[in-house]
Amino acid sequence: MNLEIINIGDELLIGQVVNTNASFLAQELNKVGVVVSKVTTIGDKAQDIETALDLALSNADSVLITGGLGPTKDDITKQVLANYFDTTLIEDNKTLEKIRHYFEQRNLPLTQTNRKQALLPQNADIIENNYGTAAAMCFKKDNKLVFSLPGVPFEMKEMMPEVIKRLQNHYKLSFIEHKTLLVSGIGESFLSDIIEQWEDSLPNFIRLAYLPNAGIIRLRLSAYGNDKNLITSALNEQINKLMPLIKDYFLSFEQSNPSQTLVQILNKIGKTLATAESCTGGNIAHQITLNAGASSVYQGSVVAYSNDIKQCVLGVKPETLSQFGAVSEQTAKEMVRGVMSLLQTDYAIATTGIAGPTGGTSDKPVGTVWICVCDNKGNDRVAKCFFPTNRANFIDRTTTEALLLLLNLLQQDTK
Amino acid sequence: MNLEIINIGDELLIGQVVNTNASFLAQELNKVGVVVSKVTTIGDKAQDIETALDLALSNADSVLITGGLGPTKDDITKQVLANYFDTTLIEDNKTLEKIRHYFEQRNLPLTQTNRKQALLPQNADIIENNYGTAAAMCFKKDNKLVFSLPGVPFEMKEMMPEVIKRLQNHYKLSFIEHKTLLVSGIGESFLSDIIEQWEDSLPNFIRLAYLPNAGIIRLRLSAYGNDKNLITSALNEQINKLMPLIKDYFLSFEQSNPSQTLVQILNKIGKTLATAESCTGGNIAHQITLNAGASSVYQGSVVAYSNDIKQCVLGVKPETLSQFGAVSEQTAKEMVRGVMSLLQTDYAIATTGIAGPTGGTSDKPVGTVWICVCDNKGNDRVAKCFFPTNRANFIDRTTTEALLLLLNLLQQDTK
Repeated sequence: MNLEIINIGDELLIGQVVNTNASFLAQELNKVGVVVSKVTTIGDKAQDIETALDLALSNADSVLITGGLGPTKDDITKQVLANYFDTTLIEDNKTLEKIRHYFEQRNLPLTQTNRKQALLPQNADIIENNYGTAAAMCFKKDNKLVFSLPGVPFEMKEMMPEVIKRLQNHYKLSFIEHKTLLVSGIGESFLSDIIEQWEDSLPNFIRLAYLPNAGIIRLRLSAYGNDKNLITSALNEQINKLMPLIKDYFLSFEQSNPSQTLVQILNKIGKTLATAESCTGGNIAHQITLNAGASSVYQGSVVAYSNDIKQCVLGVKPETLSQFGAVSEQTAKEMVRGVMSLLQTDYAIATTGIAGPTGGTSDKPVGTVWICVCDNKGNDRVAKCFFPTNRANFIDRTTTEALLLLLNLLQQDTK
Repeated sequence: MNLEIINIGDELLIGQVVNTNASFLAQELNKVGVVVSKVTTIGDKAQDIETALDLALSNADSVLITGGLGPTKDDITKQVLANYFDTTLIEDNKTLEKIRHYFEQRNLPLTQTNRKQALLPQNADIIENNYGTAAAMCFKKDNKLVFSLPGVPFEMKEMMPEVIKRLQNHYKLSFIEHKTLLVSGIGESFLSDIIEQWEDSLPNFIRLAYLPNAGIIRLRLSAYGNDKNLITSALNEQINKLMPLIKDYFLSFEQSNPSQTLVQILNKIGKTLATAESCTGGNIAHQITLNAGASSVYQGSVVAYSNDIKQCVLGVKPETLSQFGAVSEQTAKEMVRGVMSLLQTDYAIATTGIAGPTGGTSDKPVGTVWICVCDNKGNDRVAKCFFPTNRANFIDRTTTEALLLLLNLLQQDTK
């Protein structure tokens, strides 16, 4: 069973908005065995929507559309779909009541423009929106389901369980399982040479992919089939064969991301963490606190963007800064010890580097960074990295490296 | 002149990776007058690539493909394109030298797998990759240019100037201009009622779009045409007409984002900033420090995730915490004053709230947040917000509100 996604919105085609809906939808659909075979992004134009829908219906078993359901003039999807599926828009009482309630709650009047949101296609199965005014719709054509959802990510996400329910009732779905191994310290091509024989012997229902980024290669195995147990056991068998080949480089299985793994491990062993960030500017703290459960283990961070703060708050010695500079192993080490003692934690991370675009020297060019992690028993790990890239990517890569460095120390400590 | 983008990669179709390449490419192409008419995302399958290319060439003047150029077995784009354009792969000496140098620099051997990266289509115009081993290719068919670029964002981005150069030489490009106004404190439908007459009178080469998200509506005007001056003056004329209608809600023109605006204003007036973050967990610091130039004005942040740190580092009084709780106006005010005096800045921001999913009470449900901003002359702004959404969205919205609240205070101070 395969499905095509159509994302509608001029903002996507001019690059004003990144299409995060597509990846969210693909993840959710994969979980219940729906293969996403294609994603098409088009603008708010009637003809483009019709053409994309024609094409998707001729190739796929089901179609999921997002976007263009708002109350303003640039939103045309609902009317286009009503025409396409040969139906008319009528006022839906239940939806109208919901919309009335929505505005009452917010002490706002129900205007004519808002009331139009209750006009819905007569022959569509309506899915309620509990967080906005645009209802979702499910059409049926040639026994294929076509969904139309709002493009606002939060509203769309909350409606997906209802979409999934309808897909499960209508189609016989199979199973998809992905397992991703994080590998570090080896290049993509060298890794592929090492595992070539194993890769060539994979059964045809298991696909392998390499995703190199920010110093880590994600090695993904994807299995497709009708028997869940068979798929899972075949995947595990292949991973058991792979492990000895990559043991020197294997970091962990991907559990979404290293910050989540870190929060889970710290929760499990009941230890606390603090961070002292210079060049990463709070991104390590941000990545950690995105995870529910962070508050039990994460005490906080000192984002020490200026040298004054490195001295006054973190207690880095003035002579360290003058002798070795802010971007140095010595400063990183004093930062990490400083924040651990200030915030009284079991573990700490510190970063100091030059994100650019300016501030580099011939000795320490833009992209240079020192990372130090430590525990309260005197152990530490120090890494000097060089990421000569742009500012955002530098911050990303440094964040990943810092989290991995601490995971590495934790592995040692919990052995 | 319009172009279609084809992004190739199974990782995109299973949602493991968000397609940031498409938005980057669209922005860059728009800047030089190239309209992106469609984005298609497909997997690493030969037939899907051929079909997508057929379709794109029949609809668009040019095609830009990313992905599938790596050295591993799952990367098939190069071979598929060689077949499609009826040519063979031959070893390109210049590329081979580049690859040899790439591995020498890193003290790694040049393996057979790596050497294969120098095999390139005989009839393609080759674009060098200075940051990786996958060269880009430019094919010509029926006088249309077809580009194939690596999917790794950083490598792809660095090659875009060469792509743009070729587009500008080959096509007569027109002009596109986008202007986005940030509006806040009014709902989308109410805004559309207020500006309806103005909207209806827009000339047909100017399109209007509403993008509501995280408490802000972005009102985007896009103009298309052959005469740059005409486009710019028509846009300005329409904005002059719009302004009086929305003056109570207008925040600023979009200069990418509020954090960038903030850094620019602070740099201009020579003032410094610190932040004290509880529930936003470092995201405000992260958003600020993503901007080049942040280091001249941003001193740093105390991410005070635990009450201990609110007390010991920020100097929040124990009785404030016990009487009013960590999530309260009083705590927010003491946090903001605390961090301003600790880091000796002119301005400060503080946040304290309940991001969820747990930790809410009937008095203070998940989603409750207090934001306080202040200057060193005793002025402040306090906002209590309620964002009953998921954790990541809560952090996003609180961050936006906090930045806007400070922009509001700055507006007052610099009047």
